[in-house]
Amino acid sequence: MNGIIISIGDELVFGQTVNTNATWLSRELAALGITVSEHITLADDVEAIKVYLQQVGQARDVILATGGLGPTKDDLTRIALAQVLGSALRLHEPTLRQIKQFFEERGREMPDTNRIQAMIPTGCEVLENKLGTACGMQVQIGRAAAFFLPGVPQEMRDIFAGSVKNKLQQMIAFKGTNGVIMTRTLHTVGVGESDIAERLGRMMDRDRNPLINSTAAQGIVSLRINARAKNEVEALCLIEPAEREIWRRLGSSVYGVDDETLAQVVGQLLREQHKTLAVAESCTGGLLGKELTDIAGSSDYFKCGWVVYSNQAKIDMLGVDAETITQYGAVSEQVARHLAERARHLGQADYGIGITGIAGPTGASEDKPVGLVYIAVAEGDNSSVKRHVFPGDREMVRLRTVNMALNMLRKKILPGN
Amino acid sequence: MNGIIISIGDELVFGQTVNTNATWLSRELAALGITVSEHITLADDVEAIKVYLQQVGQARDVILATGGLGPTKDDLTRIALAQVLGSALRLHEPTLRQIKQFFEERGREMPDTNRIQAMIPTGCEVLENKLGTACGMQVQIGRAAAFFLPGVPQEMRDIFAGSVKNKLQQMIAFKGTNGVIMTRTLHTVGVGESDIAERLGRMMDRDRNPLINSTAAQGIVSLRINARAKNEVEALCLIEPAEREIWRRLGSSVYGVDDETLAQVVGQLLREQHKTLAVAESCTGGLLGKELTDIAGSSDYFKCGWVVYSNQAKIDMLGVDAETITQYGAVSEQVARHLAERARHLGQADYGIGITGIAGPTGASEDKPVGLVYIAVAEGDNSSVKRHVFPGDREMVRLRTVNMALNMLRKKILPGN
Repeated sequence: MNGIIISIGDELVFGQTVNTNATWLSRELAALGITVSEHITLADDVEAIKVYLQQVGQARDVILATGGLGPTKDDLTRIALAQVLGSALRLHEPTLRQIKQFFEERGREMPDTNRIQAMIPTGCEVLENKLGTACGMQVQIGRAAAFFLPGVPQEMRDIFAGSVKNKLQQMIAFKGTNGVIMTRTLHTVGVGESDIAERLGRMMDRDRNPLINSTAAQGIVSLRINARAKNEVEALCLIEPAEREIWRRLGSSVYGVDDETLAQVVGQLLREQHKTLAVAESCTGGLLGKELTDIAGSSDYFKCGWVVYSNQAKIDMLGVDAETITQYGAVSEQVARHLAERARHLGQADYGIGITGIAGPTGASEDKPVGLVYIAVAEGDNSSVKRHVFPGDREMVRLRTVNMALNMLRKKILPGN
Repeated sequence: MNGIIISIGDELVFGQTVNTNATWLSRELAALGITVSEHITLADDVEAIKVYLQQVGQARDVILATGGLGPTKDDLTRIALAQVLGSALRLHEPTLRQIKQFFEERGREMPDTNRIQAMIPTGCEVLENKLGTACGMQVQIGRAAAFFLPGVPQEMRDIFAGSVKNKLQQMIAFKGTNGVIMTRTLHTVGVGESDIAERLGRMMDRDRNPLINSTAAQGIVSLRINARAKNEVEALCLIEPAEREIWRRLGSSVYGVDDETLAQVVGQLLREQHKTLAVAESCTGGLLGKELTDIAGSSDYFKCGWVVYSNQAKIDMLGVDAETITQYGAVSEQVARHLAERARHLGQADYGIGITGIAGPTGASEDKPVGLVYIAVAEGDNSSVKRHVFPGDREMVRLRTVNMALNMLRKKILPGN
């Protein structure tokens, strides 16, 4: 079975709201084995909604539409739907009672404007909304089973989980499915997208099953293994050898699976080895500490951090020699090393990370470009420093710096490294 | 003029990535007076990309497409585009040189796979990518001026700002426009969404022009004023009285306009008054420092920060009395006040902020729930502390804490307060 997701709302095409509903629904449909081929996002415009509903109804098994079911004048989905069906809007008494009750429970009388939410095009089945006043609707349009859900994410998700999902499963059982799509994502760090593509070679060919896609952001390349199969067991049988082969070819540049973050993986390694960490950040200004403490329970291994953004702070708080700064500059191997070692020492930690760099757009000099970053990791009496020149704007440089710092520590504490 | 946004990528229709590019581009186009009627999101599928490009090229003035321009085999946009144009992919030497240089600057040789990114369909104009290896392209498809940009948000935004925007402005000057939609957003902090709705009253009616919408997140309520008019001047004449009225009714709970962040506004106030700030963070773990240093030039007023996540760090680094922690707990008014005062003193700053709280999901006790946060601001010999219990998960509690801390400082240094 294949499906399409239609999102309706001026706020979406005006660029005022990010469309998270389409993403969420896509994931749900993929998990059921329904192939989502497109998302279409439309304004609150009766003509446009009509045209697309008629058009896609001919070629899809499932339409999932969200939005435009509210009580105000800009909510036009039910009117467009009635016109597509060539039917009238009729008052649906049980829904009206529910809406009235919704307001009563909150100590208010139903405003007249909400009455429109109980007007349902003839031929539609009502899908109850337990969290709000915009009920969902189901109806056949051409070849497609079409579902209309409210745009409020919580209400949409609740109706989907409460009734749509079950109906889709019944359709799949009746029609048979063209299988499920299962996905596993492997995250790598420190290796370029094209290097990875070369190492994976034919594994990334487009006619393969599983199909492997890559996306890159801030030094992290994520590989998605998408398997199409009759059922979950067969899909897993396709995914597992592909995953194993990726691990084999990319080794320890793979750091995590699915929702795992680099900070999480590093934290887990520290915890397992009963080691602790302290950090001293200049150009990242607290971002490394923030990423480490995004994880509940990080106080088990994260001892403390210093944000030493100014030269004076580096001198006063971490005892960097003023002469070192004069001689080598605040953005130098020497200062990074010193920050890492002093953070480790003052924080009484096993590892110290020191970061100094130029995130831009200001602060560059002739021999020190924007994006120049030194990252040091100190352990015992040893410390190592790496020099990087990162591309991109201030945000990209800072995010990539944190990823590279976490990876440097990860490689130090990885068993076998 | 009207436009359509096409987003290309398996990760989008599989529900693995939220489509923020379409939102961002919509906002840019709306600001130029180009009406965006639809977003279309497609898989990395040559046939689907071809069909939609041909179809929408007939009915739109502008096509903005993103994604599918990477170096790997799942990047198929350039192939689909060549087929739509009926033209061949030709090596574009200047682009190849740029890509090679991009790698050289990073001390690496260009992998062979990246060569495809210099292959351009005949007839396309190249739009230089200064941040990465995926150049953009421009070409006429049917009636539409079509722009193809990489999917990496920063690169997409940079090419749009650097060349696409200017080209669109030239088109508008030549073709004329069907009116503009202008938006201004006012951000407020510390007042609830329904309080604001009550104070604004009929100003928020749906049949008004300008139309005022509100959204709320982490203690910040943003009010968007959307005006439709023939041209920018008329739109401004609608926006300005509405904006003034909002300022009048909401006073200093309005902190900023459009893209201004709270950290930016606070930084600007500090800079104007030649004041400096030092911070000591427990539960926010560096997030406050990160937000402050998101802004280039923040070293003018941000002196330093401590991330004192553990009790020991609070004692060792900021001299919190162990007995104070035993008596009142680490999450207490006393500790917050001490952190703010010691940060100010050690950092030799004019203001100090101290934060201690329970971000959750662990760490709560009978009398100290998840979301309990104490925020202190120290100035001279004075310090003030506020106790909050914030709703939501770990991320929400941390973000709201930072917003409330910045607002507490803002109110202290606001002229007239």
